[in-house]
Amino acid sequence: MSRQAIAILGAGAMGSALVTPLVDGGHDVRLWGTWLDDAIVAALRRGDVHPGTKAPVPPSGRVFASTELQQAMDGADIVLMAVTSEGLDPVFRRAASHLRAGQTVVTVAKGFFAEPDGQMVLLPTLLESLLPESLKATPIVAVGGPSKAVEVGLRAPTAVSYACRSLAEAQRIADLFATKFYFIEPSDDIVGLEICAALKNVYAIGLGICEGFRQGRGVPHNNTKSALFQVAVEEMALICEKAGGRASSSLGLPGVGDLEVTGEAGRNRVLGELIGGGLTADAAVLQMRERGQTVEGYPAAALGWQYCRQLGLTAAELPLFGALNAILYESADAFEHILEALSRRYPKH
Amino acid sequence: MSRQAIAILGAGAMGSALVTPLVDGGHDVRLWGTWLDDAIVAALRRGDVHPGTKAPVPPSGRVFASTELQQAMDGADIVLMAVTSEGLDPVFRRAASHLRAGQTVVTVAKGFFAEPDGQMVLLPTLLESLLPESLKATPIVAVGGPSKAVEVGLRAPTAVSYACRSLAEAQRIADLFATKFYFIEPSDDIVGLEICAALKNVYAIGLGICEGFRQGRGVPHNNTKSALFQVAVEEMALICEKAGGRASSSLGLPGVGDLEVTGEAGRNRVLGELIGGGLTADAAVLQMRERGQTVEGYPAAALGWQYCRQLGLTAAELPLFGALNAILYESADAFEHILEALSRRYPKH
Repeated sequence: MSRQAIAILGAGAMGSALVTPLVDGGHDVRLWGTWLDDAIVAALRRGDVHPGTKAPVPPSGRVFASTELQQAMDGADIVLMAVTSEGLDPVFRRAASHLRAGQTVVTVAKGFFAEPDGQMVLLPTLLESLLPESLKATPIVAVGGPSKAVEVGLRAPTAVSYACRSLAEAQRIADLFATKFYFIEPSDDIVGLEICAALKNVYAIGLGICEGFRQGRGVPHNNTKSALFQVAVEEMALICEKAGGRASSSLGLPGVGDLEVTGEAGRNRVLGELIGGGLTADAAVLQMRERGQTVEGYPAAALGWQYCRQLGLTAAELPLFGALNAILYESADAFEHILEALSRRYPKH
Repeated sequence: MSRQAIAILGAGAMGSALVTPLVDGGHDVRLWGTWLDDAIVAALRRGDVHPGTKAPVPPSGRVFASTELQQAMDGADIVLMAVTSEGLDPVFRRAASHLRAGQTVVTVAKGFFAEPDGQMVLLPTLLESLLPESLKATPIVAVGGPSKAVEVGLRAPTAVSYACRSLAEAQRIADLFATKFYFIEPSDDIVGLEICAALKNVYAIGLGICEGFRQGRGVPHNNTKSALFQVAVEEMALICEKAGGRASSSLGLPGVGDLEVTGEAGRNRVLGELIGGGLTADAAVLQMRERGQTVEGYPAAALGWQYCRQLGLTAAELPLFGALNAILYESADAFEHILEALSRRYPKH
């Protein structure tokens, strides 16, 4: 039972980082690079550090190129999807034809997916829809929580949540994947976990905006940032519940924990800082694009907002999310809209 | 009803900062400096900025010297205790003889107080015990939440919680004190609020330790920090419930919100960074003392631990608090003890 064959699909930062705990756990690890990862595969095969994260990847994991998907998945017990939300659909379509009964799919992708009919769904729902008819019972486990890839790869202690509709399956995978430095809390709230995983990037932009006020308004706004942190956790809890998940995911590692690490650093925060510093959202996004930096939280704000509207939620229930959408997509003044969100959340009686 | 006479006792950073929202609210504000605040009182009377925070204090509040306590409190509707936890007992003893019926006491002091019999109590309990017999019904309102004094004084949007056994009284004071930039959530959970207010300083040392690991272990530990953040919120919630308060205070502004701002900067974090960077706790505390810097969370760890033991809680239920105590008071290795706390919190099944 202990040693598993695990195919990691996607050799980006997180896919490559997860080689470390899985090799530490004694598993047979195969890292497959997509057609966008050719340079990474070549570097790792040469024994170089990962070109993206500059971190070493344990050589005992085997590395497969994009043309070798079947070989990478051959005999795998677990297939770990480690691609971006945009890559999930095309990569899983290819992988699906190599799946077989008895496997489990684990996914670290975060975000929303727009179905052809315009319906917004969470990524595990997308995966389920792409499973072959005969394999619809394949368990899907989603990963959330504070987990910077490079730190996972360097064995900095990390605690994450693994969620599956079947708690027993979440527990089984958690016990297989956990190491001395990689802690896993199993959960059956895959809906809540996914919502937090996608939306914490949006709220982290809000935290970054408050950091930007230091320059843009000449005064530090740590109090404002912490108030927004708190409102973000509440709003994610409400969205979780409305979607049939649980508020506890927002209060746990996927919400509070992941928002903490995401608000500390990263591109979502940088985008927010530029806006808080005085740029319009359009100008800030453009500036980052020119540097080659995409910001996960920016499209997630629009998709997530549409998802919330599907659930019947509006800016009346989600004043901060509403403000962030207005700031990001309607050129609304960041300070005035954040102030208004706080006054809606904490009204005088 | 609207314009109140408010005596702020203590002209330190927070007492002086609160002059701004209270003057903005149109109140008759009197700021009284203790016998330790003579230089501050002199500076403010000259129209200078506050010597501690370098922030301006609105001149429309009157400033009273330590010999003028009676004048400052004369006709006051509300007495606002803005001294440190150590100063609360001596200052409130003097103030108590000037109290009269119909007043409300608001307190921003945070911490625990050791009764002569060794019993550890929360600060509102201390205040109640010092009230004159005829004034035992005086409502006591405690303030918690993310609130850096200098930012309150500079009108950076701030959201805090005001808690009183009587929710109606908390609401009344909240409506009197709230402004366009100073938001207040009323609460009846004064026990939970006080526990979070005192203990967030302790847990912030833990977050600082993780920051220090960047230097001490050569790798950033943001994942570890966020995991500890999450465990801290859970442990504070448990302590709140065990003490007869509510977990929701830990999940709200007094817990999540205040821990966020306290972990970002300040002396608790600095102490942690020194320890995470490789100093023993004794050496780190000594180094800070030599710079004239006292760290609230350091004594609060010992007092708070005693308080938890009174409640029947041990390191089995509070693995992180237990680890922090061992690190701070038993020269325990920071990394090993934090790793052990995480392994207790997230065991393999």
